Amino acid sequence: MPQPANDRTTIAAISTPPGAGGIGIIRISGPQALTMMQQVFRPADRHCSYTSHRLYYGKIVEPSSERFLDEVLAVYMAAPRTYTREDVVEIHAHGGHLVLQSILELLLAGGAHLAQPGEFTKRAFLNGRIDLTRAEAVIDILSARTRKGVDLALEQMSGTLYRCVDAMRTSLVRLRALLEVAIDFPEEDVEIIDRPALLEQLEDDVLQPLHSLITSSTQGRLLREGALVVIVGLPNVGKSSLLNTLLQQERALVTPVPGTTRDTIEEYVDIGGLPIKLVDTAGIRDDAGEIERLGIERARNSINRSDLVLFVIDGSRELTVEDRNLFQAVCHKPLLTVINKSDLPQRLDRDSETTICDNGLTISALNHDGLAALKQQIFERITGGREQWQEEGCAPNLRQDIALQQAQRSLLLVRQGLEDGVSNDLIAIDLLDGLNHLGEIVGETTTEDMLDVIFNQFCLGK
Amino acid sequence: MPQPANDRTTIAAISTPPGAGGIGIIRISGPQALTMMQQVFRPADRHCSYTSHRLYYGKIVEPSSERFLDEVLAVYMAAPRTYTREDVVEIHAHGGHLVLQSILELLLAGGAHLAQPGEFTKRAFLNGRIDLTRAEAVIDILSARTRKGVDLALEQMSGTLYRCVDAMRTSLVRLRALLEVAIDFPEEDVEIIDRPALLEQLEDDVLQPLHSLITSSTQGRLLREGALVVIVGLPNVGKSSLLNTLLQQERALVTPVPGTTRDTIEEYVDIGGLPIKLVDTAGIRDDAGEIERLGIERARNSINRSDLVLFVIDGSRELTVEDRNLFQAVCHKPLLTVINKSDLPQRLDRDSETTICDNGLTISALNHDGLAALKQQIFERITGGREQWQEEGCAPNLRQDIALQQAQRSLLLVRQGLEDGVSNDLIAIDLLDGLNHLGEIVGETTTEDMLDVIFNQFCLGK
Repeated sequence: MPQPANDRTTIAAISTPPGAGGIGIIRISGPQALTMMQQVFRPADRHCSYTSHRLYYGKIVEPSSERFLDEVLAVYMAAPRTYTREDVVEIHAHGGHLVLQSILELLLAGGAHLAQPGEFTKRAFLNGRIDLTRAEAVIDILSARTRKGVDLALEQMSGTLYRCVDAMRTSLVRLRALLEVAIDFPEEDVEIIDRPALLEQLEDDVLQPLHSLITSSTQGRLLREGALVVIVGLPNVGKSSLLNTLLQQERALVTPVPGTTRDTIEEYVDIGGLPIKLVDTAGIRDDAGEIERLGIERARNSINRSDLVLFVIDGSRELTVEDRNLFQAVCHKPLLTVINKSDLPQRLDRDSETTICDNGLTISALNHDGLAALKQQIFERITGGREQWQEEGCAPNLRQDIALQQAQRSLLLVRQGLEDGVSNDLIAIDLLDGLNHLGEIVGETTTEDMLDVIFNQFCLGK
Repeated sequence: MPQPANDRTTIAAISTPPGAGGIGIIRISGPQALTMMQQVFRPADRHCSYTSHRLYYGKIVEPSSERFLDEVLAVYMAAPRTYTREDVVEIHAHGGHLVLQSILELLLAGGAHLAQPGEFTKRAFLNGRIDLTRAEAVIDILSARTRKGVDLALEQMSGTLYRCVDAMRTSLVRLRALLEVAIDFPEEDVEIIDRPALLEQLEDDVLQPLHSLITSSTQGRLLREGALVVIVGLPNVGKSSLLNTLLQQERALVTPVPGTTRDTIEEYVDIGGLPIKLVDTAGIRDDAGEIERLGIERARNSINRSDLVLFVIDGSRELTVEDRNLFQAVCHKPLLTVINKSDLPQRLDRDSETTICDNGLTISALNHDGLAALKQQIFERITGGREQWQEEGCAPNLRQDIALQQAQRSLLLVRQGLEDGVSNDLIAIDLLDGLNHLGEIVGETTTEDMLDVIFNQFCLGK
């Protein structure tokens, strides 16, 4: 684990998002935090002594000229009872971006370093306040697109994953100790090592929970990142009505997450807690009149990346050769046929169109018939209709999942070795590998590079 | 002045902008603020006594289920030493929007009212902490586009305009008292009223400062709202290079103010502290090849609304009939001819093209020659080259300017009356009018409707 530097710098950043808001905050962390605040802050009560965690009213001034910059509340929080476990200062100003920028510039001129994205949280981790899974949960909370995603992140922040991994590690450390004693005193092997008992412990305490964590990581990724559902169909089958109806029903998620651009063709909806990104391919085409144009890059791209294609046909007319061609073009993907316009007299010949129509869902985007069933189907198809879909619990992210799988691979070798009578010192090597991979998850054995990757996902000021 | 209600409700809102940030704040104000916080906040130290202005670490939970929602810092600030002069509570959570939304919903379920835009500041005004000019300065700080705009707002927030208006009102109140005594005791008129002295007092203490405030309001509006400068010219005269060069030189203002859309053809630059919106009409046309297309709605619109047209011609070639036609189409507007491409051999015949070329500025957008002079010219043309451009001082906004002019109109009648020997009671009526108009500025005599208009300009949570 990387060690906290004792000669750490003092960092500062604007910790509220840009945009119009009532309050803007500048955060400072490090040994010089209080001194730097005092350079620019003039408390209304000249004789205040800066009690920790107490807000003081006053002014920010340019130190050289005492020129007034803003009226603020300032608070000094003494280490270690702070977000970073270092001395922390917050300056609460009026929300204007230019004002915040000016104050930040004063602090930088006074010797503060501009904080990198995630640097406050990285310090909280390096100073041992939180482990790496909790640090990652902070990102997840900020970027969650559904309440379920938030709950998942909160669960992780409360340490569920950490405790789970920690229990496995404790068990492995005990196994390792036994193995090492046996290596040091090989002649007493039989007495020290009860291999069947070891195997049972490995299985129950480590391999089982490891397996179930890995299983739940798919769920975690879905809840965090959501799934891409693409609506495909000929013109006038009701693609856009379907999109609009789904959006209206579920109320489009207005997430402030960068990248959630909401143009006319892509919208997020919350289906059973999953953030589902709906793409209407009609919107992709400049002119919805020609099926050939579906071949253009963007539509093809969306379809290829999609987790599910909603193939929409019009139940009030017979299928055409264009419908069938389009179906052929997309049926390599997981697909759900949606037979729209159940509100009109049906003329679709389902019996002779079994390839397309079987397992199709009949709906009316117009009067919302069948929409609940459609959403249920979308949810089940995305989640794999899995029984193992858990209401609660941890759901490792991709990085954690990779480490879990690496740990699993090493520990399966340990099991194999124990079963096959491989020598203790060889088994110990695999066991150490497994332990290290688990250590990566909580941040005990994580490399600097990996830490940089993780904390670079944060926004500025966190 | 509208009176503060004693039975005021407790209001709550998210006070940080939506978007990715390290800290999100929910603010509560009103008599129930502390109680409402206690319903959802579980301090880490169970026995804490909520000292005013002290931050406490703890958890937000759903009160019915004690379900964990987020770890937060919470602070209670006891009236009257708060933003609103009421009890105020702030909950500082992780910045995620969904989390903030959840916490806000808990508070609303617990009886808080969702704060209207500007309602916190409105309460600060109604409770007498700030006058109306200072409240308006808060909006200005949030929406300022240049540092100079911020400085202006800070100046106003520090009370410069308030004190100026207040001094005039005090003087008028004194005049009015004299007049009223004279009305009550008409026979003693001569002894009480020294009309020449009154006239001098009115002139020096009120009419003079009033005049200079009205003069500076144009400046204020320019600094707040900026000016529109439209770049017009034939294709290939270098319009876009000019735009880009001006932008690069001044670094486009990145303001988070809603409405500052930054597409390819409109950008804000800071010229001498003025936020200047530059529009390149080339961008307005789909195809820059045809001069006739300048007739399209948008270009015409921009030109009509513009405060200055930069008419760009190419000094390396002779003027064409198209140049002349285009000039005719725009020369009804304030216009500055820019002779571009001074880096090339000059073939423009300035002597025979005096209408267009006189007072023209020669520049090279390519190597930046003449750009400083151009910016200086733009600044002077926009500000009217005025000597009265003040570096410091108040600059009333449109609402204040209107009230100032109404006051001026009434008080000029007072002067006239005093000079013409009009009876005291008639003069007193005009004087009261003037006094009321000045009272509108600071919020003493402002109607509820006007207050609504003012505070509706605020963002949520302020």
